[in-house]
Amino acid sequence: MYRLGVDLGGTNIAVGLVNENLELVKKLSVPTGATRPGEEIVADIAALCKKLCEDMGISLSDVVSIGIATPGIANHDTGVVEYANNLPFRKFPIAELLRKDLGEDVTVKIENDANAAAWGEACAGAAKGTRNSIMITLGTGVGGGIIIDNKVYSGFNYAGGELGHIVIQVDGAPCSCGRKGCWEAYSSATALIRMTKEKIEECKASGRATVMADAPKVSGRTACDAMRAGDEAAKEVYDKYIKYLASGLATIINIFQPEVISLGGGISGEGQSLIDSLLPIIRSEQYGGGVVEMTDIRIAKLGNDAGIIGAAML
Amino acid sequence: MYRLGVDLGGTNIAVGLVNENLELVKKLSVPTGATRPGEEIVADIAALCKKLCEDMGISLSDVVSIGIATPGIANHDTGVVEYANNLPFRKFPIAELLRKDLGEDVTVKIENDANAAAWGEACAGAAKGTRNSIMITLGTGVGGGIIIDNKVYSGFNYAGGELGHIVIQVDGAPCSCGRKGCWEAYSSATALIRMTKEKIEECKASGRATVMADAPKVSGRTACDAMRAGDEAAKEVYDKYIKYLASGLATIINIFQPEVISLGGGISGEGQSLIDSLLPIIRSEQYGGGVVEMTDIRIAKLGNDAGIIGAAML
Repeated sequence: MYRLGVDLGGTNIAVGLVNENLELVKKLSVPTGATRPGEEIVADIAALCKKLCEDMGISLSDVVSIGIATPGIANHDTGVVEYANNLPFRKFPIAELLRKDLGEDVTVKIENDANAAAWGEACAGAAKGTRNSIMITLGTGVGGGIIIDNKVYSGFNYAGGELGHIVIQVDGAPCSCGRKGCWEAYSSATALIRMTKEKIEECKASGRATVMADAPKVSGRTACDAMRAGDEAAKEVYDKYIKYLASGLATIINIFQPEVISLGGGISGEGQSLIDSLLPIIRSEQYGGGVVEMTDIRIAKLGNDAGIIGAAML
Repeated sequence: MYRLGVDLGGTNIAVGLVNENLELVKKLSVPTGATRPGEEIVADIAALCKKLCEDMGISLSDVVSIGIATPGIANHDTGVVEYANNLPFRKFPIAELLRKDLGEDVTVKIENDANAAAWGEACAGAAKGTRNSIMITLGTGVGGGIIIDNKVYSGFNYAGGELGHIVIQVDGAPCSCGRKGCWEAYSSATALIRMTKEKIEECKASGRATVMADAPKVSGRTACDAMRAGDEAAKEVYDKYIKYLASGLATIINIFQPEVISLGGGISGEGQSLIDSLLPIIRSEQYGGGVVEMTDIRIAKLGNDAGIIGAAML
C-alpha cells in the first residue's frame, strides 16, 4: 500500500512515495515556476506522480491517496486553496484539477504546508503516538501546525495555526505579515541573523572584540558557533534569542498543553543544546509546572520530508 | 429532564437547576468558606443540590447529570481536581465525593470554571450553534475557555486554555502568575484600573484637568464613563487598553480562527461600543482578512450564569 505526498513550495515541487511503514521510499522534484498559471503547476505535479509510480514499477491504482502540502489557506474539506501569498492561487481547486490530470479515481487531499509538516511529525516523527501536538518551524519565518485529537486543526475557515503571528511584543519589531512584534520577528532564523548583525555593529562601534565579525556571511549559525567558541558577545545574542523563543513556547504551552512540541527548521539543527537552553525558562514560565505532567519539547525528526510524509498521510 | 450545574468559586458556591431548554430555572448559593476542608465544601454542594430539587418538587433521579465548574486544573476524565490556587484541592476526587454524598446513582462531571463558562456560552449563549469558539472573561483576571469540535479543549493534562497567560509584552508588567507581560496584566479590569490610576497621577503631576480625578473610587468603568463625557485623558487610557485587548484577540484569531469569540466579565458590560472599538484593530492585524470568513466577536450572553449552565451541560 502506497501513498503519494506532494510538497508544493515557492521554489520546488517535491513528490514522494510513502510506504505502509510511513517511510519515504523515493522522492522527485522539479522547480515550481511560481509565476506560471496554477494549471501548469498542477500538470507538473501530475507528471511527477506518474513518473514516480513508473520508476517504482507500480500503478496509480496501487496508490490509496495523494496529499498536497501547499502554502496559504488550504480548505481541506473542498480541496480548494483559498489564497496563497507566493503562488498564483485564488480559490484554486487544486485537488479537483489534479484528479482530472491523473485521469484516475484517486483520492486527493490538501493541507497548508506547515500543518502538513506537523501532521507528518505526529504520524511518523517526533510526536508519533500522541493525540495532541504542535510543530514549530524555525526557518525564514516561524511556522506552526496544530494537531488536536489526531487531526490537523486550522479553524472554521482553514486559516488558523498561524503560530508565528502571535504578538509577543506590542509595538515591537515589524513583521512581514504587517503586524508589529510577532513571534516570527523574534524567533525566526531571519530574526536571529538580524540580532547577530546588530550585535556585530554594536561591537564595531564600541571597539569590542567578537569573532562574529569575522564571519564571511552572517547566518543563523553564526552566533551559535561563536558562542560555543567562547565569544561573550555571541552569548548575549544567543541568550536574547532563546529568551524570546522560550517565551513564545511557554505561551503555546499555556494555551494548548500539548503532549509534544516539536521544533523544526534550520535553527532546530542546534539539536539538544537548543532544548537544554530553552527548558529552564519554559518550565519557570509555564502553567501547571510541578502539578501535572508537562509538555515534552523535542527536535523534529523528519527534516524536509515532514511535509511530504504529512501530505501523504492526510 | 433536568441537569444541575455547580459554580464553585472562592467566595460562593452557586448551584442551579437547568431545564431541557437549557434555561436556568432556579439558583441557590452559600458562602464557600474556602479555607475549610474540601469534604465540607462538597457536603454543602450536596445539600444545595438536594434543597434545589426539594424546592422544585423533583427528585434527584429526575436529574440526568450534575456538573461542577471549579477553579484550578480539573481532570474531566477522572473527576479529580489536580490543583486549585484558592481552594484546598490537591488531587481532590470531588466528583466521587459528591456522588457518595448524594447517595444516588447520579453522573457527576467536572471542568475548570473558565472552560465551563465557555461551554455554557457555546451551548446556550453567544456562541450557540458553533463548533469552535473561544470565551474570554475580562474580570479581575483574564480567563479563557476553548471549545473545539463541540468539546472543551484543555490539553493532555487538563491545564490548557490559560489564555490570560499568553505573553504580549516580553519583560512587561508583572502578572499574578509570576510571568511578566501576560495579556492579563494589560487586559483585565485590574489592568484597566491600574492604567486609569496611573493617568490620574500623571494628570495631577502635570496640572492637566481630568474628570477621572473626581471619581470617589476608581473602577473599570471610570475611564469608559469619563471618555464618553468627553474627557481627553480618559480617552487615552481607553485607547491604550483597547490596543492591548485587540492585540491579544487578533493573536487568538491567528491561532484558532474560531467561529465566535465571546467576551464576558465586568468589562464586557461596555457592550457593543467595546466591540466597535476593537474590531478595526483586530481586522487590520488578523490573518486571512478579506480572503476567508472572519471570526465574529460578540458580547457573552449568560453573564454570571455561564458557569452554572456550562457545568450542567458537561
